[in-house]
Amino acid sequence: MTDTRTPEDRLPGTALPPQDQLQAVDAWWRAANYLSAGQIYLRDNPLLRRPLEPGDVKARLLGHWGTTPGLNFIYAHLNRLINETGQQFLFITGPGHGGPANVANAWLEGTYSEIYSHVGEDEDGLHTLFKQFSYPGGVPSHAAPETPGSIHEGGELGYSLAHAYGAVFDNPDLVAATVIGDGEAETGPLAASWHSNSFLDPAADGAVLPILHLNGYKIANPTVLSRMPESQLVKLLEGYGYRPHFVTVTDPDAIMTAHEDFAAALRTCLSEIHAIQEPYRSGEKQAVPADAPVAGDVDPHAPRWPMIVLRSPKGWTGPREVDGKPVEGTWRAHQVPLSEVHDNPEHLTQLQDWLQSYRPEELFDGDGRLRGEIAALAPAGNLRMSATPYANGGRLLQDLRLPAYADFAVAIEEPGGERVSPMLNLGKYLAEIIRLNPENFRIFGPDETASNRLQEVYGVTDKVWQQRIEAVDEHLARSGRVVEVLSEHLCEGWLEGYLLTGRHGVFNCYEAFVHIVDSMFNQHAKWLKVSRELPWRQPIASLNYLLSSHVWQQDHNGFSHQDPGFIDHVVNKKADVIRVYLPPDANTLLAVTQHILGTRDRVNVVVSGKQPAPVWLDPEEAKLHVKRGIGVWDFAGSEDESPGVKPDPDVVMGCAGDVPTLETIAAAALLKERLPQLRIRVVNVVDLMRLQDSTEHPHGLSDRDFDTLFTKDRPVVFAYHGYPWLIHRLTYRRTNHSNLHVRGYKEEGTTTTPFDMAMLNQIDRFQLAIDVLDRVPSLGSTQAGFRQWLQDERQRCRQYTRDEGQDPPFISGWTLEEAQRSTQD
Amino acid sequence: MTDTRTPEDRLPGTALPPQDQLQAVDAWWRAANYLSAGQIYLRDNPLLRRPLEPGDVKARLLGHWGTTPGLNFIYAHLNRLINETGQQFLFITGPGHGGPANVANAWLEGTYSEIYSHVGEDEDGLHTLFKQFSYPGGVPSHAAPETPGSIHEGGELGYSLAHAYGAVFDNPDLVAATVIGDGEAETGPLAASWHSNSFLDPAADGAVLPILHLNGYKIANPTVLSRMPESQLVKLLEGYGYRPHFVTVTDPDAIMTAHEDFAAALRTCLSEIHAIQEPYRSGEKQAVPADAPVAGDVDPHAPRWPMIVLRSPKGWTGPREVDGKPVEGTWRAHQVPLSEVHDNPEHLTQLQDWLQSYRPEELFDGDGRLRGEIAALAPAGNLRMSATPYANGGRLLQDLRLPAYADFAVAIEEPGGERVSPMLNLGKYLAEIIRLNPENFRIFGPDETASNRLQEVYGVTDKVWQQRIEAVDEHLARSGRVVEVLSEHLCEGWLEGYLLTGRHGVFNCYEAFVHIVDSMFNQHAKWLKVSRELPWRQPIASLNYLLSSHVWQQDHNGFSHQDPGFIDHVVNKKADVIRVYLPPDANTLLAVTQHILGTRDRVNVVVSGKQPAPVWLDPEEAKLHVKRGIGVWDFAGSEDESPGVKPDPDVVMGCAGDVPTLETIAAAALLKERLPQLRIRVVNVVDLMRLQDSTEHPHGLSDRDFDTLFTKDRPVVFAYHGYPWLIHRLTYRRTNHSNLHVRGYKEEGTTTTPFDMAMLNQIDRFQLAIDVLDRVPSLGSTQAGFRQWLQDERQRCRQYTRDEGQDPPFISGWTLEEAQRSTQD
Repeated sequence: MTDTRTPEDRLPGTALPPQDQLQAVDAWWRAANYLSAGQIYLRDNPLLRRPLEPGDVKARLLGHWGTTPGLNFIYAHLNRLINETGQQFLFITGPGHGGPANVANAWLEGTYSEIYSHVGEDEDGLHTLFKQFSYPGGVPSHAAPETPGSIHEGGELGYSLAHAYGAVFDNPDLVAATVIGDGEAETGPLAASWHSNSFLDPAADGAVLPILHLNGYKIANPTVLSRMPESQLVKLLEGYGYRPHFVTVTDPDAIMTAHEDFAAALRTCLSEIHAIQEPYRSGEKQAVPADAPVAGDVDPHAPRWPMIVLRSPKGWTGPREVDGKPVEGTWRAHQVPLSEVHDNPEHLTQLQDWLQSYRPEELFDGDGRLRGEIAALAPAGNLRMSATPYANGGRLLQDLRLPAYADFAVAIEEPGGERVSPMLNLGKYLAEIIRLNPENFRIFGPDETASNRLQEVYGVTDKVWQQRIEAVDEHLARSGRVVEVLSEHLCEGWLEGYLLTGRHGVFNCYEAFVHIVDSMFNQHAKWLKVSRELPWRQPIASLNYLLSSHVWQQDHNGFSHQDPGFIDHVVNKKADVIRVYLPPDANTLLAVTQHILGTRDRVNVVVSGKQPAPVWLDPEEAKLHVKRGIGVWDFAGSEDESPGVKPDPDVVMGCAGDVPTLETIAAAALLKERLPQLRIRVVNVVDLMRLQDSTEHPHGLSDRDFDTLFTKDRPVVFAYHGYPWLIHRLTYRRTNHSNLHVRGYKEEGTTTTPFDMAMLNQIDRFQLAIDVLDRVPSLGSTQAGFRQWLQDERQRCRQYTRDEGQDPPFISGWTLEEAQRSTQD
Repeated sequence: MTDTRTPEDRLPGTALPPQDQLQAVDAWWRAANYLSAGQIYLRDNPLLRRPLEPGDVKARLLGHWGTTPGLNFIYAHLNRLINETGQQFLFITGPGHGGPANVANAWLEGTYSEIYSHVGEDEDGLHTLFKQFSYPGGVPSHAAPETPGSIHEGGELGYSLAHAYGAVFDNPDLVAATVIGDGEAETGPLAASWHSNSFLDPAADGAVLPILHLNGYKIANPTVLSRMPESQLVKLLEGYGYRPHFVTVTDPDAIMTAHEDFAAALRTCLSEIHAIQEPYRSGEKQAVPADAPVAGDVDPHAPRWPMIVLRSPKGWTGPREVDGKPVEGTWRAHQVPLSEVHDNPEHLTQLQDWLQSYRPEELFDGDGRLRGEIAALAPAGNLRMSATPYANGGRLLQDLRLPAYADFAVAIEEPGGERVSPMLNLGKYLAEIIRLNPENFRIFGPDETASNRLQEVYGVTDKVWQQRIEAVDEHLARSGRVVEVLSEHLCEGWLEGYLLTGRHGVFNCYEAFVHIVDSMFNQHAKWLKVSRELPWRQPIASLNYLLSSHVWQQDHNGFSHQDPGFIDHVVNKKADVIRVYLPPDANTLLAVTQHILGTRDRVNVVVSGKQPAPVWLDPEEAKLHVKRGIGVWDFAGSEDESPGVKPDPDVVMGCAGDVPTLETIAAAALLKERLPQLRIRVVNVVDLMRLQDSTEHPHGLSDRDFDTLFTKDRPVVFAYHGYPWLIHRLTYRRTNHSNLHVRGYKEEGTTTTPFDMAMLNQIDRFQLAIDVLDRVPSLGSTQAGFRQWLQDERQRCRQYTRDEGQDPPFISGWTLEEAQRSTQD
């Protein structure tokens, strides 16, 4: 896929392209516009072989015309440039609700018919193409997984530029031409995305060519960027670090002028891109000293990448006026400019005239095939933007080389015998992954990678940074595998773009603040749900969330940092797509991570503490536990451990999450010490979806297995990492659900100690032991003294914490042995 | 609260303030810094009356020193300016994790002791002040509801500037001095917030003074804005439409120079603010013609508001080096600069020296009271930023004048007899609210107010817009009650700021995309949870979400626009705070809206369709239904309607949400027609939390009431607007839960017709009727023919939709009578 020509070969000058090329571009544009309007309107008579009748028009007119002609204009010009230069482009459609444009161009390029053979390259195919759009059983109105060449669903605005940067990281031969609508430009994520240029390495990464498309209006309002004085807009974009090139269509009829201007601007931008890249790649441009002088306002460290501002009328080439009101160039062109075509003959005539204005007879031959001289504008093979493998990342995906689990797992003598920070240990493993996979694995994080204790990765890599690097800085470099910015939106968007183009990665984030990207997760999960149903979309690496600094461990921070609800949000999405892991210690975290990095087309959520904590399982046990996802921990309970059929225990203590597991083990230890005859079973859940029905989730347990673990009728005291009702939601159909009592986070918090947090939410060992006493019928009346002791002990801890400002030593010790000792304290 | 002096009176020139004033500012700054460091470190010996010992230092050292001295610096200077000018300021602390600063200044101003009498203005008080910070049972480490003068929790970054703009809307006498950290400035929401100036009316609104505080680093990395060349930063900020004034502290020891520079900058900014406001307020500056020329790059329409860029070292005045590594001015100052004070005597000495460097003996008298000459810098009464009523909005809150419900409710002859768009009808009501409350009610929306069918409000007001207004534009004006921008983050942030300062409002949004602000909702709900527990915080108006264009009605759009999960997200928060309403028709929507606008300290989520739909209840019935929140709809069921004790029905059909209600009524009609002996009860839920236990939620039904409605043992077929498992989550403790069968959105969608959406998710009338047949034991075997007919009918609808591209007429008709007719079709 590499073009061997030099940039000079590709761009023999900045002279205008020959007029015949621009005529071909114009013909392509008219064809794309015709196909776009046709998709919105027609269910029959696709080539207007007879005058339009109301019956030719769809019953429901759905779609977004306004942005579409601009998208088609840009696309046609990119094709010309690709033909001229052989440059590989990925087309990212920020205004993806202009879906007809993407579909139209894919059809013109032949890709659509290659993928969807029922939509041929002839009149029948056109008929199907038109009818299926926004139609029951057809294709969506937006650019979507179904759309060839797209990695970007255009429904929710704001992520085009972040996706684009993610796509070109480590893809040095790629340019992502990214259309940003002026509506989208008002969103926060997009506004932050401009600064992505501070994280793009000109040597090892590709380039992004932002095309800010100002058509002046969003749904019903003018846009902020389109209405500011142009001189102010120039400052804004230069302030973002770009060199903007303006193409302004003042006269909608002066089309050839627009073609000339835009062709020249595109060519200039590509020249500038190559001119920036060349010295970095040839080694001519070396590290820039920290005190290099600023030339004008240009950072000597961060190149100023080109971009285009295209001002063109909204709904350009569509109806100029409808019912005496201006439409072209206004917000009225946003969706369907002529809406009464069924009942208003004048509208129908206008539609006919509009469609005819593209001169379909010049575009398609008698069979409805695109005429050869126009089709020739389509680039060859994979250079077609609708066919580029970059937009079907699974075609490029290489498996990660994963280090041996055993080399990083922690050996233990007994359960809880070692205390290790799970995240710190994982950092060592991630460092080795980086060493083994220097070009297709990245870690993204909002300035929290070290805070989340993954700093071991800095032994093998750096944090990417293109601005000035000062002597005091650590682990900053022009290239590196860790990408940090204080924006969860950017981390998520970059990673999505990176994955969708066929690479691997992890997003590490504070648990509470990953809610910032709830909606981005939604869109990605929806993308995966649909793309999994499309045979031509190859599986991509999963989106992996590594959430730490979680609700139970927010020492420096308070209530605002305590929110375990992302899990609840995630489990609403399709079961095929989502997985949630709550590894209880360092070894299980390691095994989970190794597993998820081999999965495809999923979203994996992993929640782990970062503080040193007991290691409960030895390496082999941990691996097996993760494989099973759920299991009885004999060492923690008090059942007869000899093989064979056993009677049901008196109580089951379930746990999911590291802190709940610790508290459960400690509670069981307290109970075992005082009530040696009580048969306690401790069940630990690492793969949360095991709790759900096997009919509801592919990882779900069968009812028989669930009953075997949790019994059919014994009390179950369950300590859960997050909001307790999620456990009920997952298990409400289970036989023993009515005996299930769940403790979890109930939205009580502040800046306090970890054990005080557990007590505030009644998930501490004393409360769990009390819960057992209250629920095992035989104990209720006989253990009043023990119950009181537990309450007193709880109160004593609370008081100690308040007096001393730290957890009681026997609590913060947090090992099994110490937990047992606490009963003797 | 109005200062009657003219701006000239207040700012007699731009000469420097007298040196003695700057000395007082410096003393205040030292005092605040001392109190801040003391809060982070000391549990005893607050005035260093003896050399520090390890035991004087807290066991856990928690907090964020890095940003704090800068906050204190700004605060002290604002106090001086307030004293000079009488200008009312609200202080918004973007870096709210610098909580010690806010607390310190509130204590210095006396406000802290006024509110918290156990923290006196003496040495004992200091002792408590220090110990309580980040301490179990104490106060949070961040600015929080507990912090006097704050409307902004500093945990999750990104919202300070949006909150500030929301606070000054309709508060012409207020200036919100808003400190934005350079970390926060990297977030998307903050980046978008700069453009808020396009929505600020200089005449009727107050002003925001952004103070971009560049201390160079976030947790572990340099920041994007601090490292770009200053000339580029100027362009960026001018591009955002501001006039930046730079104050740069190059030498951390040149403190008096810094004071002079900052005092001058603040004064200049306030002069510029007044100079902008004056001509708009006097009427001298009138509407600007659309073609007014641009002067330089200054928009003649939108004023260029001043702002400050303060570059100062992170952790300024703290330890310069620790263990040989630079700390002041680097990321190492972010949290606790000296962390080994318990065990490392050198660290302890450094801490002692650091604290002494503020010369506490000059600041506090022998009793630990702030010396009078320093205390004199505190402004008087409510001018103190820690005491301003603007930061305790409930003190300023006026009840809304609400129009009579009866004037807007829709009269009907029979259930379903009228078809009305609930949102369109609500728009009329909102228009009247706007007319009656011209100064303290606003509607915020991301360019969707008309799309959500609230356009009737434009009969009485306009959309705010400060940029150029062109002839083709409609309903745009410099002032107006509707605020629209394509950023859910800004809508939410502005509304929060507006509410927190004592006004009322509504956020109307597409249902799916309100997830964009999931995390902002979290933080506001947490704020309310805590502020409700503080007696001194007066209740504020509730945060009202009006969600339309919902999952079942996304005609122009597809799968990306279909997500009802915000409700699931919301119900994780404290029951005292959250309410969810699913009004089934126009009258119930009206009654719900009237109700929520009178509530306080809550988050109300209302989901309603926008398409014309049947009105089921007459005005009085609707009001009563909303009051009860849940009820039996006799007209829809087939029970004996005569009074007296009735036998349980054969089946209960529950429904919540407009489309599920319609489908349930239609299904019941089908069943009634064919099976006249079947006793069906239809229960409609408008207040979703009624389903929950009365012990779990204040609106929850008692078990007895629930059993009365849903029976103890009859099958319940429940059609729900959102993800079906939420209904299980809310009801899993109910007697009859095991007989509950829920249909809802199961994440199947695309661009298609509304009834096809219902069928895709099996919530359509035919499926619901089949569900009843399958669950009523007596019907299972006898109704095979009817069941087959229902399946055939379903298939026929599907085929019709695919053939014709629209819903079958007897379905889209959607009235009770037509639903019944469909069985005869």
